[in-house]
Amino acid sequence: MNLSICCGRNFSTNDRKYTSRGSQEVNKRKILVVLVDRANYGRLKPVLRAIDEHVALELQIVAAGTMVLQRFHKPVEVVKRDGFQVDTEVYLELEGSTPATMAKSVGYGVGEFAGEYQRLKPDIVLLIGDRYETLAAAIAAAFMNICIAHIQGGEVSGSIDESTRHAISKFAHFHFPSTQRAVEYLIRMGENPDTILTVGCPSSDIARKLDQNAGLANSIINSTGVGATIDLRRSFLLVVFHPTTTQFGGERQQMGQLLNALSELQLQTICLWPNIDAGSDHISKTIRVFRDQAKPSWLRVITNLPPDDYLKILAAASCAIGNSSSFVRDASFFGTPVVLVGSRQDGRELADHVRTSPPSAKLIVQAVQEQLAHGRYNRSTLYGNGHVSERIAQSLAELTPYVQKRLHYIYEQANVQRHRAL
Amino acid sequence: MNLSICCGRNFSTNDRKYTSRGSQEVNKRKILVVLVDRANYGRLKPVLRAIDEHVALELQIVAAGTMVLQRFHKPVEVVKRDGFQVDTEVYLELEGSTPATMAKSVGYGVGEFAGEYQRLKPDIVLLIGDRYETLAAAIAAAFMNICIAHIQGGEVSGSIDESTRHAISKFAHFHFPSTQRAVEYLIRMGENPDTILTVGCPSSDIARKLDQNAGLANSIINSTGVGATIDLRRSFLLVVFHPTTTQFGGERQQMGQLLNALSELQLQTICLWPNIDAGSDHISKTIRVFRDQAKPSWLRVITNLPPDDYLKILAAASCAIGNSSSFVRDASFFGTPVVLVGSRQDGRELADHVRTSPPSAKLIVQAVQEQLAHGRYNRSTLYGNGHVSERIAQSLAELTPYVQKRLHYIYEQANVQRHRAL
Amino acid sequence: MNLSICCGRNFSTNDRKYTSRGSQEVNKRKILVVLVDRANYGRLKPVLRAIDEHVALELQIVAAGTMVLQRFHKPVEVVKRDGFQVDTEVYLELEGSTPATMAKSVGYGVGEFAGEYQRLKPDIVLLIGDRYETLAAAIAAAFMNICIAHIQGGEVSGSIDESTRHAISKFAHFHFPSTQRAVEYLIRMGENPDTILTVGCPSSDIARKLDQNAGLANSIINSTGVGATIDLRRSFLLVVFHPTTTQFGGERQQMGQLLNALSELQLQTICLWPNIDAGSDHISKTIRVFRDQAKPSWLRVITNLPPDDYLKILAAASCAIGNSSSFVRDASFFGTPVVLVGSRQDGRELADHVRTSPPSAKLIVQAVQEQLAHGRYNRSTLYGNGHVSERIAQSLAELTPYVQKRLHYIYEQANVQRHRAL
Amino acid sequence: MNLSICCGRNFSTNDRKYTSRGSQEVNKRKILVVLVDRANYGRLKPVLRAIDEHVALELQIVAAGTMVLQRFHKPVEVVKRDGFQVDTEVYLELEGSTPATMAKSVGYGVGEFAGEYQRLKPDIVLLIGDRYETLAAAIAAAFMNICIAHIQGGEVSGSIDESTRHAISKFAHFHFPSTQRAVEYLIRMGENPDTILTVGCPSSDIARKLDQNAGLANSIINSTGVGATIDLRRSFLLVVFHPTTTQFGGERQQMGQLLNALSELQLQTICLWPNIDAGSDHISKTIRVFRDQAKPSWLRVITNLPPDDYLKILAAASCAIGNSSSFVRDASFFGTPVVLVGSRQDGRELADHVRTSPPSAKLIVQAVQEQLAHGRYNRSTLYGNGHVSERIAQSLAELTPYVQKRLHYIYEQANVQRHRAL
Repeated sequence: MNLSICCGRNFSTNDRKYTSRGSQEVNKRKILVVLVDRANYGRLKPVLRAIDEHVALELQIVAAGTMVLQRFHKPVEVVKRDGFQVDTEVYLELEGSTPATMAKSVGYGVGEFAGEYQRLKPDIVLLIGDRYETLAAAIAAAFMNICIAHIQGGEVSGSIDESTRHAISKFAHFHFPSTQRAVEYLIRMGENPDTILTVGCPSSDIARKLDQNAGLANSIINSTGVGATIDLRRSFLLVVFHPTTTQFGGERQQMGQLLNALSELQLQTICLWPNIDAGSDHISKTIRVFRDQAKPSWLRVITNLPPDDYLKILAAASCAIGNSSSFVRDASFFGTPVVLVGSRQDGRELADHVRTSPPSAKLIVQAVQEQLAHGRYNRSTLYGNGHVSERIAQSLAELTPYVQKRLHYIYEQANVQRHRAL
Repeated sequence: MNLSICCGRNFSTNDRKYTSRGSQEVNKRKILVVLVDRANYGRLKPVLRAIDEHVALELQIVAAGTMVLQRFHKPVEVVKRDGFQVDTEVYLELEGSTPATMAKSVGYGVGEFAGEYQRLKPDIVLLIGDRYETLAAAIAAAFMNICIAHIQGGEVSGSIDESTRHAISKFAHFHFPSTQRAVEYLIRMGENPDTILTVGCPSSDIARKLDQNAGLANSIINSTGVGATIDLRRSFLLVVFHPTTTQFGGERQQMGQLLNALSELQLQTICLWPNIDAGSDHISKTIRVFRDQAKPSWLRVITNLPPDDYLKILAAASCAIGNSSSFVRDASFFGTPVVLVGSRQDGRELADHVRTSPPSAKLIVQAVQEQLAHGRYNRSTLYGNGHVSERIAQSLAELTPYVQKRLHYIYEQANVQRHRAL
Repeated sequence: MNLSICCGRNFSTNDRKYTSRGSQEVNKRKILVVLVDRANYGRLKPVLRAIDEHVALELQIVAAGTMVLQRFHKPVEVVKRDGFQVDTEVYLELEGSTPATMAKSVGYGVGEFAGEYQRLKPDIVLLIGDRYETLAAAIAAAFMNICIAHIQGGEVSGSIDESTRHAISKFAHFHFPSTQRAVEYLIRMGENPDTILTVGCPSSDIARKLDQNAGLANSIINSTGVGATIDLRRSFLLVVFHPTTTQFGGERQQMGQLLNALSELQLQTICLWPNIDAGSDHISKTIRVFRDQAKPSWLRVITNLPPDDYLKILAAASCAIGNSSSFVRDASFFGTPVVLVGSRQDGRELADHVRTSPPSAKLIVQAVQEQLAHGRYNRSTLYGNGHVSERIAQSLAELTPYVQKRLHYIYEQANVQRHRAL
Repeated sequence: MNLSICCGRNFSTNDRKYTSRGSQEVNKRKILVVLVDRANYGRLKPVLRAIDEHVALELQIVAAGTMVLQRFHKPVEVVKRDGFQVDTEVYLELEGSTPATMAKSVGYGVGEFAGEYQRLKPDIVLLIGDRYETLAAAIAAAFMNICIAHIQGGEVSGSIDESTRHAISKFAHFHFPSTQRAVEYLIRMGENPDTILTVGCPSSDIARKLDQNAGLANSIINSTGVGATIDLRRSFLLVVFHPTTTQFGGERQQMGQLLNALSELQLQTICLWPNIDAGSDHISKTIRVFRDQAKPSWLRVITNLPPDDYLKILAAASCAIGNSSSFVRDASFFGTPVVLVGSRQDGRELADHVRTSPPSAKLIVQAVQEQLAHGRYNRSTLYGNGHVSERIAQSLAELTPYVQKRLHYIYEQANVQRHRAL
């Protein structure tokens, strides 16, 4: 497969003048990056840096979704503290966390993103992942004839994220998938191979550079959240369990089983509150009731951690339990043992560090014990080799934006007509 | 390919009781059909009839988009006159016909459809085609865990319709594509072959039954719209030209060329106003200015025709010129010569009756003259054999709804695990 | 002032037939009641009962705003447990609690209420109070030509509630104010005196019937929320402090002063989390940080209480501190000493039981100590005599709905032309 | 009454520095003016000019509603041609022109205006009149703690405009009413007399300066719209008839009567299409059907005229017939005879030039004939003396913005406490 850029008429940096007018560079290509949750930022941070530092690119940041919510500790503040300028904050979450409010939030978000695009006039909108907020950002861009580049397309999972991810791919004009299988799948889905510009997840760059030995002071983890005091020098578990929206209503029972498993394990445990998807209120309530009734001495529940701290915790955990995609992806870089619970990540490419378990207390306990017995795994490069972000920035500078997509199958036997038709 | 239904646990009509309580049947499967424009209804009418008459199905109709707008002569009134009960009318078009208002209309529509689904509680939402309003209906259903069946997936075209169509397919749980190539493409895109339930467009059923000889009284066509009096017994042209949203801003020039071509041809012409897509206001204005300035004696401009009348006009025209998908699809059944102008339908499967032309007056004139010289074509069954609607209704009664989709590629080498994973 | 109904052509119950068809009464006047928070329901419960039991009225309930949010413990569930049928639940809160999200929630709510009115087709929409969600409900009704009746108009307070309340009055067709001053003010504002149908707040009915001696088991209050165990048989304080939206940004400092005052008082205290207005996230965070740092042994923080339990707590408290309108209104019925902090209730009519204090720790402490020294006050009938709800229901049955309002001043010297103009 | 500004701490232009940085003045007070239709602009043009030229003010313009719609010939283009910079265009009209879509457009508009305010960060939002779009702009500002100044409060009319106008007054912090009666009414409604800053409508400034003798070339009027060629040197009628939303459904019959009256009069007539309110589609259709069937040789129908041209037509007409507020207001400056049809303007202060008529063909004919017999009236200064705009601009520069309103009645007997409470 040819990973070079799409068209003959390349963007030539030599041809362009970068006149300085005050503090604003003219003629820079404007790359608008949409961040919709903490995890988005955790993975995109090195890409933001690479875009910001690229001579031919101007970085625009739209923080949306849970990034701007106090309930999630406003992760956007971390972005600002890291030195990035956030152009606008978009509130789009209709409160309720039901399937209907999630749908309505998508709809509301489309309008809000459209408004921001009108003002910021980006050349390219850069999206990552499979969140519903990201779908809203994609639809607004596509209907406004703005070129879309998408990171993490071509993967397979459960929940509504699965359909959402592929729909985003169908609106995206360029792709930065994370794995070779994802590249293959995108091409099979009818995407133009020439529009697939890199392979590898930028989160691997972070993992590569993360100084795990620096570790985390106990004080950081114990100054946020509620519950047990955690000693990070001892063995601990990390739990993140989000709802699988396509099983709305089932999350209570699933979380109950997971908590029962933890009760049996009786190891010190850091548990993060779930995201905002339909069903999350039920999971939160299940955790709250469990804390009130069982009064577990081993459990600390935390709303949110800055991305770097989260990754250090993930890297240091003896076992990560739940269904966060970071357990599939980021944990693979660290070799952290994982027990993947339920169907939310079904279909993902898994490195050796993962065991799967149905949401049954007994089976979860068994899987965790096996992982604890095994200990750490070797690092994997399945999701990237740690040198991705700068390639993405460079591609964004070099690609030729276009608007009209077409299922690539029709060009297979008619390659001659191809460029004309495009 | 196996066109049987998806799962082992078939819907068995024998097992169910249909208790009559007043006028309402209980235990019927509720099929909610979304109609977003005149063309939707034109094609779905026999499907609506078949669902309505099916013993195991209850028909729900949501009329949305231009179906309910006075400016488009409220096509929903035709639905009611035809004897169907319309459950609700959804207004979702934010006025403006710009790319941004089109995006915002999608967003607004998602919220409105979500509200209707909450009240009507359908078992299955049945969608057709590739309109942005239909995308809104699909997103609302997908996020609310309602099973989606989609007609006309797997085709290829231009405009934003292209991306929209494939995104809808990515949310749809079952497919009723129109052609063998569309079936093949859907499977290649990763849809489960077992979820593809029929082949053929229901519009072929209408064409099969349409009594062309009955024809249309001149009085009908001349009692609506403005301009020249048309004599349908003589040769006439039919023109429909919609904006290609991905070329927003170009539609003025394109329509200008088309009008110049018509000026040269000087044949009596029926022209329909464009749809509501971004750019349509520009096309309308171009037509209006042309009428004011050129005062063409051969041109009648019409807002809207009931679907049956439209098909009769299309069947009787000496040549149809423009970029309506009905010129590709419905005209193929009739063998009406077509000149397809511009890129809006690029990639569609074309029967022999179509010639394509860039939006250049000279080339359009040439293509039309060739088509007039050729005369009518043989009927084609490329888009269906005229026996589709009842198969769709029967499939809707027999299929087993499900919610969690997954890219089918992952099951290819792991067929054993397949049903469990689903 | 004449409190009879508006027009000569009275609604005569004798003229109407109430045919029973199944469980549905025909020809009943449909009264749609909008409940947007716990307090709304607390005050409207006897009105709902009176409407429900009235032979000529059909009750419709729309639960919206925080009534349906898990974060507020879904107060709508209490409505259902009390035996009322809730027709629909409306999610309209855009998460964020900023001035902009509050504005956008009003806007979103207008659309959602409009959708519900279209389906439920009420004859009269009955609203209470001055919440932004209620404004949304009023606007939707007014523009859809649905007659509006409003409880608690004509009062004066601070925060955006003040403007909101009067704007609602300007859309309302009939008024049920709570005090004689409110009646006077509504008339001075240009409302037709004949459209003011009762005086007195229905909450006085609840207070009249509340069996305070039954009291509350300690177990109830200590089984919800977090913090100190409260002994209701001993003296305790009740704290409710909402943001004053017109001082957005100032609420942190104000709540800080209030908490400092409580720290000094060191009495067992029940504190409720604030409502959802702009600034509430800041107040919540201030409370959370205080709990984490000061670890107060005397403080219990509670999300929500069923209305009856709340009133019993309010009736039993030694002093209520904060800025809830229930401290002005409901506490007056019980004679509970109150210290009103800040400007949120500035302008309200106050009975003897209230002392006001700026948001200064020192002054709050002083005022509370004075109130504790004074002890309970005599009951007041300023806000009603306890016989209001049935009068409201009867008025709703008898009034003649109309749509076109007009500032009443123009009829003052032209009474002859009046009825014709209306 | 004291028309000086509100507070002791006056805005002193001497204290401020106006540093020039590039083309942008710093420290200027930002006045955001919302224009929602052609008439808004027609009246505000001299105010816009005065603000733009004021040394202490920075003008921001938001064009919304029908100002930006192609269907209304994008009146915003006239604003730009006149040399004003339009900061943003807001699309908020949900197509349909039903009561429900009008309500939903209000709601949608609130969200859109809130978004624009967030970006433009005005110090004061300046609004005019009583349109639903303006209500949306007022609500967004009020909830975002932005100071609102309102022109044309305190008047009385019919339609939903009546309630809308007073609700806007209840959110407005400062008032620029047009007549002495309006001043009196605003004070009676509880507005603080010190916040009423001028008397007189800025449209009187336009009328004062309008060079009527310059007149309009026939070519201008005959190059737009459809129908009869009008000779402006001969006697002609001007017709504008908008729906009265509170009589939704009645507008067809009313417009029919008006057209019948015109049929009988058989004078050359310029008729403008109605605005976008609920019912306007019905009026448009009635006109269209009338044109098709009656083929009137005396009728020209026009979508839109630039404000100056409109005023010249109004000034030159032998009689203006319908229910536009410009017939009450602008025609009074010119002394143009007016027949006011129906109840839409009921309650307005009328100068001598107006006769009213119910929507009955016979009575309209009679009233028009009387007006034609009477001929032109003397100019009136009821709505202003032609020196208003600069006073408004100066007031905007001098006033002290505040946020918290309170019904002024409570200060009547407590004047000492007043300024402290504010």
